[in-house]
Amino acid sequence: MPMPPESSRPRIPDRLLLGPGPSPMAPRVMAALGHPVLSHLDPAFVPLLDEVRARLQRLFGADGESLALATPGTGTSGMEAAVANTVADGARVLVVVTGYFGDRLAQMCQRYGGQVRRLEVEWGQACDPDRLRAALVRDRADMVAFVHAETSTGVLNPARDLASVARAHGARTIADMVTSLGGHEVRLAEWGIDVAYSCTQKCIGSPSGLAPIAVSGPSRQALVPARSFYLDLALLERYWRERSYHHTLSASLVYALLEALILIDEEGLEQRWARHRRHHVAFIAALEAMGLSLLPAPADRLHTLHAVRVPDGVDEASVRRMLLDRWQIEIGGGLGPLAGRIWRVGLMGAGSTSDTLLTLLDALERALTAHGHRLEPGAGRAAATASLAETLLRE
Amino acid sequence: MPMPPESSRPRIPDRLLLGPGPSPMAPRVMAALGHPVLSHLDPAFVPLLDEVRARLQRLFGADGESLALATPGTGTSGMEAAVANTVADGARVLVVVTGYFGDRLAQMCQRYGGQVRRLEVEWGQACDPDRLRAALVRDRADMVAFVHAETSTGVLNPARDLASVARAHGARTIADMVTSLGGHEVRLAEWGIDVAYSCTQKCIGSPSGLAPIAVSGPSRQALVPARSFYLDLALLERYWRERSYHHTLSASLVYALLEALILIDEEGLEQRWARHRRHHVAFIAALEAMGLSLLPAPADRLHTLHAVRVPDGVDEASVRRMLLDRWQIEIGGGLGPLAGRIWRVGLMGAGSTSDTLLTLLDALERALTAHGHRLEPGAGRAAATASLAETLLRE
Repeated sequence: MPMPPESSRPRIPDRLLLGPGPSPMAPRVMAALGHPVLSHLDPAFVPLLDEVRARLQRLFGADGESLALATPGTGTSGMEAAVANTVADGARVLVVVTGYFGDRLAQMCQRYGGQVRRLEVEWGQACDPDRLRAALVRDRADMVAFVHAETSTGVLNPARDLASVARAHGARTIADMVTSLGGHEVRLAEWGIDVAYSCTQKCIGSPSGLAPIAVSGPSRQALVPARSFYLDLALLERYWRERSYHHTLSASLVYALLEALILIDEEGLEQRWARHRRHHVAFIAALEAMGLSLLPAPADRLHTLHAVRVPDGVDEASVRRMLLDRWQIEIGGGLGPLAGRIWRVGLMGAGSTSDTLLTLLDALERALTAHGHRLEPGAGRAAATASLAETLLRE
Repeated sequence: MPMPPESSRPRIPDRLLLGPGPSPMAPRVMAALGHPVLSHLDPAFVPLLDEVRARLQRLFGADGESLALATPGTGTSGMEAAVANTVADGARVLVVVTGYFGDRLAQMCQRYGGQVRRLEVEWGQACDPDRLRAALVRDRADMVAFVHAETSTGVLNPARDLASVARAHGARTIADMVTSLGGHEVRLAEWGIDVAYSCTQKCIGSPSGLAPIAVSGPSRQALVPARSFYLDLALLERYWRERSYHHTLSASLVYALLEALILIDEEGLEQRWARHRRHHVAFIAALEAMGLSLLPAPADRLHTLHAVRVPDGVDEASVRRMLLDRWQIEIGGGLGPLAGRIWRVGLMGAGSTSDTLLTLLDALERALTAHGHRLEPGAGRAAATASLAETLLRE
């Protein structure tokens, strides 16, 4: 027998995940991930698909005739499925670009043969519905695609208004809800959004690898034949509803997603949105007390992902690295034009709690102080605590 | 506070997975799946990608300049990535169709704009290289695509010879190794195969959700711009090698895959292939003693997945259901024209052991007897045991 090669099994640190995702996993979700594996067609497994579909439909606020399932990949697979199944060759698509993921959406529509026009909005700002209206009056479009929660800038776009303007001009809508679903108010049916997709590892709180997607009932007839086989919604639906084999769906990921969706329903959607808002408001109060500010204007801010301006003279990457190395806390840096200029702090899913917020603030205070940023010791924590108390009393 | 909705947490049975996949997970792989989640860009995570790449390159037997990584989806995502990145619009693709997955490969090539010709081989038979030669002499092709291990029929195609014929006629090759990689001899560089892909949940033994793929060094220049963004190998490579963000790779799935690859290297590739062969030979001996036979001819049989003919007068689905309900053993049924005519029994990865084989034989004997198939009690087990002893003595 030859000697087996030496195995270099890695030591995996236990991080507090407060970047743009993945977010922390609740113990119950982690336990579900470890359930015994079942095959994708096992009679004990397939009923779980119905439960996931029903809970996703509710989470999206989609109508009873809508299609809701999860594509077998990360949020980007959801984006690609949304585009591949709705954008016909030559379709006129107006893409609202308010950041990195709006840009990715535009690239995706181009790859799938859309005639893409971009409505560019400065990074850090939301899209004014009047600008969309003006763009649609100037040139008609078959579809409008936009990002509800722009993960690269921390901006919340007014999904309801954008969808309403699009509808008024005869265009269908695709909405990216990767960083909003499960943390922000989402009401597909009420807002008249045709197709939306998300991911599992942010506000939902399960591991990445599945992408929830919903197509409204009225829009299902408008789906086009997808070039992609793997992300063909007609084939995916046949598997999710009729158990007709399409791919070997990972039971482990489905167990975890289902457990996360059960946790969401136990908490209640409105309570969950309120919880994300509460910690967002407290975080802002703390940031102000620490002499820091957010990139987006107050009305445009996500409750789930925060683009914090790096103060003058402070080294963005060095602070981030110190949080990671000393306190095992992950936050994100900026993308594209915002690289080096912002930190991205996610308070999402099981990461949106008072404990995680205060832990972060204590570490951030020490890291900023070590990097020459002057602040009053304990001011951030005090402001956050006061804000939390005030909000809780009001709720 | 409203009452939370009642949670219907499912009871997940512990199956012995001996169908066409997923295969059983080794305890070490299951434990790895539960490691703390890290983000896709964490400095403690990204070195694992290099290790996965190196171990996959070795597993594929690919050259040192080859690209080896895992696409973020099931085996079908690997198939789509292979096609999307190699088949240019209008490319002449000859697809060898020896079963369900050859047919899927042909569909995929068509969706990506290939001019597809199908070389149809009767289900249950391997493709004779002379037939491929004749087809290429008749009409030239830019690419030849075939399935090495046809999961729907239990047939092993002669990959080395098919690739050699293709190369002699100036065609590049795509090989589907979903049911061979990790269980059968695979030597991409030596055999001159350009692109191959597999899955994680069969002979590798980790959960589904990632698809190993390899592109030989010389073939890397011949990749074409992919329409798919999610499965664009150029973007995926930039992430796997340069950590340039593309998608939120699931750390949990990478931990499990890496642990499974470590287990493979600890066992040794040749020893692992021999183990799969040993249990295959013993299974055949047992089947014969039980009055059963395999669909493919002896020379064409996979060691990993067995297409067992259903004896006359026996209800295929009822036997399968009895194995599942009484003994928690999963085996598969036939697809397409083979539905109702075969069982598909996988002895793959951690499922290819003497214990699992004997457990299966005992249950199968009881299930067959209950369904009116007459056999000598204990004959299967005795034949398997004798075969195992003989092979072990010879090895």
